[in-house]
Amino acid sequence: MAKLGSESDFEIDIFVMMIDPSLYIDESNEKGRGVFANTPIPSNTIIEISPVIVMSADERKLIDQTLLHDYIFEWGPDSKQCCMALGYVSVYNHSYSSNCEYEMDFANAVIRVKTVRNIEADEELFINYNGDWNDSKKIWFDVK
Amino acid sequence: MAKLGSESDFEIDIFVMMIDPSLYIDESNEKGRGVFANTPIPSNTIIEISPVIVMSADERKLIDQTLLHDYIFEWGPDSKQCCMALGYVSVYNHSYSSNCEYEMDFANAVIRVKTVRNIEADEELFINYNGDWNDSKKIWFDVK
Repeated sequence: MAKLGSESDFEIDIFVMMIDPSLYIDESNEKGRGVFANTPIPSNTIIEISPVIVMSADERKLIDQTLLHDYIFEWGPDSKQCCMALGYVSVYNHSYSSNCEYEMDFANAVIRVKTVRNIEADEELFINYNGDWNDSKKIWFDVK
Repeated sequence: MAKLGSESDFEIDIFVMMIDPSLYIDESNEKGRGVFANTPIPSNTIIEISPVIVMSADERKLIDQTLLHDYIFEWGPDSKQCCMALGYVSVYNHSYSSNCEYEMDFANAVIRVKTVRNIEADEELFINYNGDWNDSKKIWFDVK
């Protein structure tokens, strides 16, 4: 598979995994840790492609009784499986009007995160835990 | 907290989290995914400092019944807690003679990974799941 910094576009491979080097983790106001970028990032830029660990519906029932309930994603075409995402995917905080969005790639067991508007340097990056950046459906906790 | 690329050494903060930009994830022979570096890295270099999600002994009993059993780390001074590590920490494969080692920082809820010898470009990075790079105690699966 291709790695970052390939010389030619022809070497780009959809299975490549990466975290944009401008991303960093820091404390987020009242929200614990969050993900930030130390440079401006244009809209519609893929900033992270990270692996996930896929589990069954039965495993999900067990995981849901632990703190990881707050971190796992529903997974699979019928959303019955779940996954634990690695990289920084599990560190992004939620916003009902987020500046990033995630895409689940079931075939390759990865989650991609992309910006949905221009990002300023040192701005916190948010995803909407409902999927689409502007989905206002209430999530399972009160947003600070 | 300091972010990567601070202008002054005085800004360095032990709480900084980072993944060396030379690291990438690719397929590892027979072992699924693994972590690699696309440049040489000197011995004794910290290549990753990533957050962990800490859970109790009771939660660990539930997690141990799932695939995440293979990923969690024992945690805490008495090893009774467990944690799920983010970043790439959960992607490193095991070797009984590994080229990297991990350090658990209970106070800051992070795991640091450092090289224990010089690494060549595109060499796979391994940790020893027992902790020390040369600990030969048998782990819970047969190493391929």
